[in-house]
Amino acid sequence: MKKIIYLRFFYPLLKAFFGLFFERKYLKGKYFESSVVGWKWVFRSLFTQKILRINKHVPWPVSTNIAIDYAQGITFDPDDLNNFQHFGCYFANTNYGKITIGKGTWIAPNVGLVTTNHKLNNFALHEEPKEIIIGQHCWIGMNSVLLPGVVLGPNSIVGAGSVVTKSFEDGNCVIAGNPARLIKTTYSNA
Amino acid sequence: MKKIIYLRFFYPLLKAFFGLFFERKYLKGKYFESSVVGWKWVFRSLFTQKILRINKHVPWPVSTNIAIDYAQGITFDPDDLNNFQHFGCYFANTNYGKITIGKGTWIAPNVGLVTTNHKLNNFALHEEPKEIIIGQHCWIGMNSVLLPGVVLGPNSIVGAGSVVTKSFEDGNCVIAGNPARLIKTTYSNA
Amino acid sequence: MKKIIYLRFFYPLLKAFFGLFFERKYLKGKYFESSVVGWKWVFRSLFTQKILRINKHVPWPVSTNIAIDYAQGITFDPDDLNNFQHFGCYFANTNYGKITIGKGTWIAPNVGLVTTNHKLNNFALHEEPKEIIIGQHCWIGMNSVLLPGVVLGPNSIVGAGSVVTKSFEDGNCVIAGNPARLIKTTYSNA
Repeated sequence: MKKIIYLRFFYPLLKAFFGLFFERKYLKGKYFESSVVGWKWVFRSLFTQKILRINKHVPWPVSTNIAIDYAQGITFDPDDLNNFQHFGCYFANTNYGKITIGKGTWIAPNVGLVTTNHKLNNFALHEEPKEIIIGQHCWIGMNSVLLPGVVLGPNSIVGAGSVVTKSFEDGNCVIAGNPARLIKTTYSNA
Repeated sequence: MKKIIYLRFFYPLLKAFFGLFFERKYLKGKYFESSVVGWKWVFRSLFTQKILRINKHVPWPVSTNIAIDYAQGITFDPDDLNNFQHFGCYFANTNYGKITIGKGTWIAPNVGLVTTNHKLNNFALHEEPKEIIIGQHCWIGMNSVLLPGVVLGPNSIVGAGSVVTKSFEDGNCVIAGNPARLIKTTYSNA
Repeated sequence: MKKIIYLRFFYPLLKAFFGLFFERKYLKGKYFESSVVGWKWVFRSLFTQKILRINKHVPWPVSTNIAIDYAQGITFDPDDLNNFQHFGCYFANTNYGKITIGKGTWIAPNVGLVTTNHKLNNFALHEEPKEIIIGQHCWIGMNSVLLPGVVLGPNSIVGAGSVVTKSFEDGNCVIAGNPARLIKTTYSNA
C-alpha cells in the first residue's frame, strides 16, 4: 500500500521536480521505483553538481570523484546508475568518444574506460576515439583499465588490476592480467 | 606537564564526548594519546559521517573516499587508524566478510581488499566470503588488490600495483606483480 | 579587447589578492592568462585548503583527493597545474624527496610517484629518498606507479596500469606492464 502511494503520488512529483535539474530518463528504474536510494544520489548531486559545479556537465547524478569527459557519449541503463556513485573512475572519452555499458554491468572503483588517447607525438591533440562496448552482465574489477576500441561480450569478468588492450567479443569469460588474457570461459545462466 | 594535563583531563573528556558518535575503542592509541591528529579525523568525520551521512555505518573515523561494505567484519588496532584516512581504498567484504589487519600494517591509497566476489553466473548474488588476514608489520603498496582468502604472514611487503591471488603465509617477504609472485624473502628485526 | 583588459587590469589584481593565499609563481601561465580555469581551482582550493585545511601545506591549488607528502620537493611548470586537480594521485616524497615534472607532461588519475619507501625492516622509518625525474612532454597513464629513482626521458609514454621499476632515460618511447618494459620507441615532433 505504502509502495503504491509512493509510486502513484510521490515518485512522479519527485521526478517532475528533480527533472528540472537532471534528465528524467535517468530518474527511473530500480533505484527510484523499487528503492529510494536514487533520491539520495540526486539530493547529494544537486549540491555537488549544481551548486559546487563539480561534474556540472553530467545530466545524471554522479559522485564528485568520478571524471567524465563527454557525458553524452555514454549509454547505460538507469538501473546501473550505481556505477557512477563511487570513486576513482575515469570515463576518458574526450573528442566525442562513445562508451556503451550493457545492462546489469558492474564497474568497480578506480576503473578507467579510455576511448581517446593523446596523440603520440603531440599530447595537446587527441587521436580519433575508438568506441568501448561492454556487453550485458559484465563485471569490471577494481583498478582495471580498458583501452580504446575494446569490446567485451556479455557476461565478461575483468579481474582486478587488469589492463585490457584488446577485445574479447565472445564474452562468457574471465580475463585478467596486464595485458589481460583469457583465464577461463564460463557459461552463464543469468 | 602539558601532556599530563591533556592525558588526565582533556583526553578523557574528548573521548567521552566523541564516544557518543564513534565507538570508544577506536578513540585511543598513538593518534589520540601521543598526538592529537586523531581528533582532527574525528572532527572531520563528525561532519562527513554524521551530518553528510557518507560512510555513516562505520563506527570509527573514516574519510569520504574509502568504501567499506561491512565495518563490523574488519579487525584492526586503533594505532592503525591512519589506514582509513586517505583515499581510493575499498574494503569489499559484503555478506559479512572478515578482514583482519595486523598491528603496524600500512595500507597505501587505492588498495582493494576483496573478500567477496560476485557470483560468476549471477552478479546480483555474492559468493561466500573468504577471510583476508594480513599479519603484523605488513605494507600493502599503492593500487594493489588482495583477492578473497588471501593470507599474508607478518612483515610482508606487497609491491605497488600488485594483484595478490594466493596466500603467502610465511611472511617476511616482498611480493609483487600481477599476479603477485615472491620477489625476495626478508628477515625482520621489527 | 576584453582579453587585454583582463590581462592588464583584472589578472594582476586577482594575482595580488590570491597571492596572499598561494605562492604567486603558481598563479600564472596558460590556466590564468589564456584562460580563467585556474581561478576556479584557486577559488575551490581557498575553501578546501585554507578553510577545511585539506592539503593545507601545499602552496598551489590542489584537489582534496591528491596527497602530497612534501610539496617543496616537487618542481613543475605552472602550465601543468592541471596535474594536481583530479583525484587518486599520491606524490609519496616524504623525507624531503624530490620529484621533477617536465613541462608539458600529463599525469592521469590514480598515479603514484613514490620517491621514498618505508624501511624494509621497520616501517616506522623511511629509506633515503631517490629523486624521480620525468622529462618534458611525457604522459603517465592512469593507475600507474613510478618507484624511487625512476628517470623518464622526454616524450615518454607510460601505459595505464604500469609499475615502473627502472629508468628509461632516453625517452621517446612507450613503456607498459608490471614491471614496465619497452613497448616501442617513437620519434617526436612535439
